[in-house]
Amino acid sequence: MNNYTFINGGVTSPQGFTANGICAGVKQATSAAITKAIKANDSSVIPNGKRDLALIACDKPCSAAAIFTKNLVKSDTIYVTQKHLENGVAQAVIVNSGNANACNPDGYEKAEAMAKLAADALGIDENDVIVASTGVIGQPLPLAPIESGVNALKDILSKDGGTNAAEAIMTTDTVKKEWAVQTVIDGKTVTIGGIAKGSGMIHINMGTTLSFVTTDAAISAQMLHSALIEAADVSYNMVSVDGDTSTNDTLAILASGYAGNAEITEKNEDYKIFLQALTAAFKKVARLLASDGEGATKLLVCNVSGAADEKAAKTIAKSVICSSLVKAAMFGADANCGRILCAIGYSGAQVNDVKKIDVLYKSSAGEILVCQNGCGLAFDEEKAEKILLENEIEIIITLGDGASTAEAYGCDLTYDYVKINGDYRT
Amino acid sequence: MNNYTFINGGVTSPQGFTANGICAGVKQATSAAITKAIKANDSSVIPNGKRDLALIACDKPCSAAAIFTKNLVKSDTIYVTQKHLENGVAQAVIVNSGNANACNPDGYEKAEAMAKLAADALGIDENDVIVASTGVIGQPLPLAPIESGVNALKDILSKDGGTNAAEAIMTTDTVKKEWAVQTVIDGKTVTIGGIAKGSGMIHINMGTTLSFVTTDAAISAQMLHSALIEAADVSYNMVSVDGDTSTNDTLAILASGYAGNAEITEKNEDYKIFLQALTAAFKKVARLLASDGEGATKLLVCNVSGAADEKAAKTIAKSVICSSLVKAAMFGADANCGRILCAIGYSGAQVNDVKKIDVLYKSSAGEILVCQNGCGLAFDEEKAEKILLENEIEIIITLGDGASTAEAYGCDLTYDYVKINGDYRT
Repeated sequence: MNNYTFINGGVTSPQGFTANGICAGVKQATSAAITKAIKANDSSVIPNGKRDLALIACDKPCSAAAIFTKNLVKSDTIYVTQKHLENGVAQAVIVNSGNANACNPDGYEKAEAMAKLAADALGIDENDVIVASTGVIGQPLPLAPIESGVNALKDILSKDGGTNAAEAIMTTDTVKKEWAVQTVIDGKTVTIGGIAKGSGMIHINMGTTLSFVTTDAAISAQMLHSALIEAADVSYNMVSVDGDTSTNDTLAILASGYAGNAEITEKNEDYKIFLQALTAAFKKVARLLASDGEGATKLLVCNVSGAADEKAAKTIAKSVICSSLVKAAMFGADANCGRILCAIGYSGAQVNDVKKIDVLYKSSAGEILVCQNGCGLAFDEEKAEKILLENEIEIIITLGDGASTAEAYGCDLTYDYVKINGDYRT
Repeated sequence: MNNYTFINGGVTSPQGFTANGICAGVKQATSAAITKAIKANDSSVIPNGKRDLALIACDKPCSAAAIFTKNLVKSDTIYVTQKHLENGVAQAVIVNSGNANACNPDGYEKAEAMAKLAADALGIDENDVIVASTGVIGQPLPLAPIESGVNALKDILSKDGGTNAAEAIMTTDTVKKEWAVQTVIDGKTVTIGGIAKGSGMIHINMGTTLSFVTTDAAISAQMLHSALIEAADVSYNMVSVDGDTSTNDTLAILASGYAGNAEITEKNEDYKIFLQALTAAFKKVARLLASDGEGATKLLVCNVSGAADEKAAKTIAKSVICSSLVKAAMFGADANCGRILCAIGYSGAQVNDVKKIDVLYKSSAGEILVCQNGCGLAFDEEKAEKILLENEIEIIITLGDGASTAEAYGCDLTYDYVKINGDYRT
């Protein structure tokens, strides 16, 4: 039973939070192409003021937690945010797009400076600021636009500014990603809201991408951290766009406590209700991230059931979603079952009997069984094509090994993925 | 010092071997598109007699060995070949393209039937036949064209037929892959030759793709098996086109002994000379496979040095070569260093100090350092583009952890990869 309801809203929906996002000029100051265009006096290339700086703030210190990329090569923003979250308290988030502030010799100092700029503008402790960046790796972060941007942002923080914040963290995203969900905990209405950016360099095995979540629930930093890990495990950690895990991924949450519920400090029933709503929201984000993957025309959802254990189910679902050949076949609406079986076979998961694998494609246009008992079936190619021409495809895999299930989210591999990534920096 | 010389030739260069390849009609009889075209009386779609059946034979039984895909989902051809190689003896290879004979209920019986057809035609024991297939998975293998094809082939086996055999095992390959190398063992000239098919569904971690190797060296089946594993480990197992490992991969070798050297039965100096020549040939094949990867316009060679151990070096080289983002950047001649660092960071290999990583791009047009001590450098974009517009790019990564090295082979990710794989079966 669902104890939550999605509502229109985002990162400012929970009580206590305001936000906004503007064009501060980080993208312009970073791009080599822009520099070249300015030099060449070619105004056609100079971008049109895309938002690139977001500020989220609460009117009081919040309990807070975050999880990060598992990439060994990390943006210094992550080390600064980790330090700032050591005490489990934060009050604001400053985040820029256009420059990842990763692999730079002065990255740490600049990440600290970003936090201090936000803290000074808001009149709060710099240790209570979460800092994040996304964009090009290995190019110096320009601080000047962030300084002027933060000072502009502090004056326009508002309840209506969440959407601008969602827009300001976009890179190659084509749609803004924001959401809000409500549930009832301890008799009080609790709201959770968030924004996320996705698109490329997105893979399983971590809290993928940049995501900032707010809530007015009263909940300890430790329980926030647990809830992030549990919810991300079946959502963010089951999404792949291209198999690459970024240097900057940060999934952070701040809880203001304004809902007035008794503070959640252990994994009790209230925690479970909170987790259920958070997980539902994260799964929604996972689908958004996958369907807006770079160049994607289709969301792919791989459902695995009948696995020997959860690990095998997850491993297989992720392997299928990550296969370039499966992704390209889905782009071409080709009901190839060999590539699905192939991806199951090399996943590394134990499959006790490959002769018990069934594969079915499903979409709003119907469903079609293409593999039964490990063998390809003759099927109606025209029907299959019709099913696969839809923009949301379920690949349903049934094993004969046990009762475990998993779901993973991906997208098709398209000409546009190659185009976007063949020429990203310019 | 190199003790070997590449010569013009292929699978029939070693003494004792003949081969040929023809259009037997397997591709036609398999393709759903063809079936549809025939029904619709649309002769424009019916293919033009591409070769799809190859036979390689020796005039005497050979010592023989093979290594296979590690995919759990295997073509039945593999089980049949494994059974036939239990005694370390083989005399012929029959292989078709156009249909993988994988994931079929009657795959095993048909693979056995294929071997028997070849054996009967040649008048040899069916247990001395290696059988392999490549092509579409999950569609019934048509035996009739193989039966008539084998009988046609047996009459045209020749020293000149190796190139036709190389052509007959091609699927989406754009170039035939054959090679021959000579070395001197025990005072005798030893020749090794081979053919390979590649193109897609190619990944590390196994004897990737179909490859058939012949030699006139005298060498035991056990030593052949060892040499295959050792040589493949630094060649076939370091190639990735798309991260997918096939259900059918087979790398088999037959040794006639006609060179007259004292039989190699242990890992002595003669073994080392044989292995050196075999390894050089396999590395050449690895480059061929990568540069002819589906849709590829460029060969990527990733050199890693300064790693803590060989495992780390290999893991990093492979991770870089496999990154969709790196591959797309190379297609676009974009000297992005962030994606290289990112792929190093998520490879899973231990890197003791990411602040000691250097990255350099090199081609026949020059070289350019883009990352030093883990940080992106400002570099001449025009020079970098010129270097990356060549069709063979080296990505040279230097770590500061130790003295181990590795080399991996890949290709760029292009529109054509998507095109080829978006519509493979039709």
